[in-house]
Amino acid sequence: MTEFDLPCYLAERRAAVDRALEGALPAEDVAPATVHRAMRYSVLAGGKRLRPILVIAGAEAVGGSRERVMPTACALECLHTYSLIHDDLPAMDDDDFRRGRPTSHKVFGEAVAILAGDGLLTLAFRLIADNGALLPDPRVLREVIAEIAEAAGTLGMVGGQVVDIESEGKRISAETLEYIHAHKTAALIRASLVSGARLAGGSPAALDAVRMAGGHLGLAFQIVDDILDVEGSLAELGKTAGSDRRKQKATYPDHHGLEASRVRAKTLIEEAKAALAPLGPAADPIRALADFVLERRS
Amino acid sequence: MTEFDLPCYLAERRAAVDRALEGALPAEDVAPATVHRAMRYSVLAGGKRLRPILVIAGAEAVGGSRERVMPTACALECLHTYSLIHDDLPAMDDDDFRRGRPTSHKVFGEAVAILAGDGLLTLAFRLIADNGALLPDPRVLREVIAEIAEAAGTLGMVGGQVVDIESEGKRISAETLEYIHAHKTAALIRASLVSGARLAGGSPAALDAVRMAGGHLGLAFQIVDDILDVEGSLAELGKTAGSDRRKQKATYPDHHGLEASRVRAKTLIEEAKAALAPLGPAADPIRALADFVLERRS
Repeated sequence: MTEFDLPCYLAERRAAVDRALEGALPAEDVAPATVHRAMRYSVLAGGKRLRPILVIAGAEAVGGSRERVMPTACALECLHTYSLIHDDLPAMDDDDFRRGRPTSHKVFGEAVAILAGDGLLTLAFRLIADNGALLPDPRVLREVIAEIAEAAGTLGMVGGQVVDIESEGKRISAETLEYIHAHKTAALIRASLVSGARLAGGSPAALDAVRMAGGHLGLAFQIVDDILDVEGSLAELGKTAGSDRRKQKATYPDHHGLEASRVRAKTLIEEAKAALAPLGPAADPIRALADFVLERRS
Repeated sequence: MTEFDLPCYLAERRAAVDRALEGALPAEDVAPATVHRAMRYSVLAGGKRLRPILVIAGAEAVGGSRERVMPTACALECLHTYSLIHDDLPAMDDDDFRRGRPTSHKVFGEAVAILAGDGLLTLAFRLIADNGALLPDPRVLREVIAEIAEAAGTLGMVGGQVVDIESEGKRISAETLEYIHAHKTAALIRASLVSGARLAGGSPAALDAVRMAGGHLGLAFQIVDDILDVEGSLAELGKTAGSDRRKQKATYPDHHGLEASRVRAKTLIEEAKAALAPLGPAADPIRALADFVLERRS
């Protein structure tokens, strides 16, 4: 991947996503202002924009352009951010800091934080619907919404969070931990890649390739997150370090040890790249993103 | 409306909606079981099914059939139920009873109640997407999702709830109360009627007619709710009576008096019926539903 300038690619795509998000979110002076301030506070707090960039990279991998998928890219960031706001609530993970700043309910109160999450979740589907206007084949919209709703709902992300919450303070099996990671994190990452490819008119074979790659990449992302949580420090992560440990949440290294966790993440990234082989050089951005997921330090 | 047998119509449509909801919600043994139990507990607790029946009546008013709109009818009930679950949370209205039964967070805990709401909100859009498969013109799906997402989001229902929460214990103007009612309640009721008519291929003129009627009907519904809250008793309403008063929530009768509130509700229902005139006898079910909204005792 030495040919591909990932830092430049990421910076450029991230800036485009940030501009689009700025426009996709209601302005702070639109009534009711409180909830729009809360939504913007959390979404525009920075972050890697991994999911929107995966939507774009998924489209590019099948010859599509980022303009055609930008509303859905923004939708995936809204979905991710809503899940963070709700996960951080006192009734859930009870986190005071996120991305180095006080969490939504610390700033706006619990009621507005819940409603800001609800607002972002609802806005996400509005944005995907808007993306429908850019599609040559309007039937694709139905498949994309079904894919994203399934990945975000109780058979995906929400389901993973339910089992995560229920497992707190308990000894859980390696299978349950894998279930949590695959649902809470990997499902939406996979859906990002698949939606981008689908919106750009990817063939069934191309969709299968990015679906496989996205699942591996998503699971690797969460394993690396667990490793960073164990190793990390407040300064490095911008959130209370070792917070999963404090809350007695099982991590991948707890079950398998740090070294085996690193090996598993590396293997998953190799499998993700192998799945991408049929897509040729067009999938280079996804391959570079896969390396980034493995090597990131925060 | 003496010709139209509303009790029979309601019972028949309600039974069809209940059967469809039973199939639309994941079964209790689908993992993670807790959240699916919670979703079913709240959705299948009974209720008038007003919103789904309005979706069906909206379709019938432009010559459509209920089979074609049933997934969206179920989606509207999921959206309504999610909003009730989140509204009842301790951080929001802090209600212990709903429809005569303990609220979701009292039975399943706050975390699962929040996630059950998130799951229902997400499932709603999945169901609308599924409805897309029944449409001759797939572009209609985009318009329906945009309409419903707008009505449910921060410019609609969520926005109304934000202002409602912010207004608690404060003296608010009649305009603010009207804003809360129009957004928190009327927006989704209007969207129910419009979505049904849109999915069934209603003309722009027909959509304008049901949109106007739906707005009036939705506002009347909330004013009647306020009147019942003031008059009601625990036995009659199945929830703690006068609960809006206890929480120092402003009601329509507070601002305008009981008699003027009754007159306003009646006028709105007349305006709703006037708006339906161009649709002829096909809109008789909506007209009967409008009378029902005015005359209901619970």
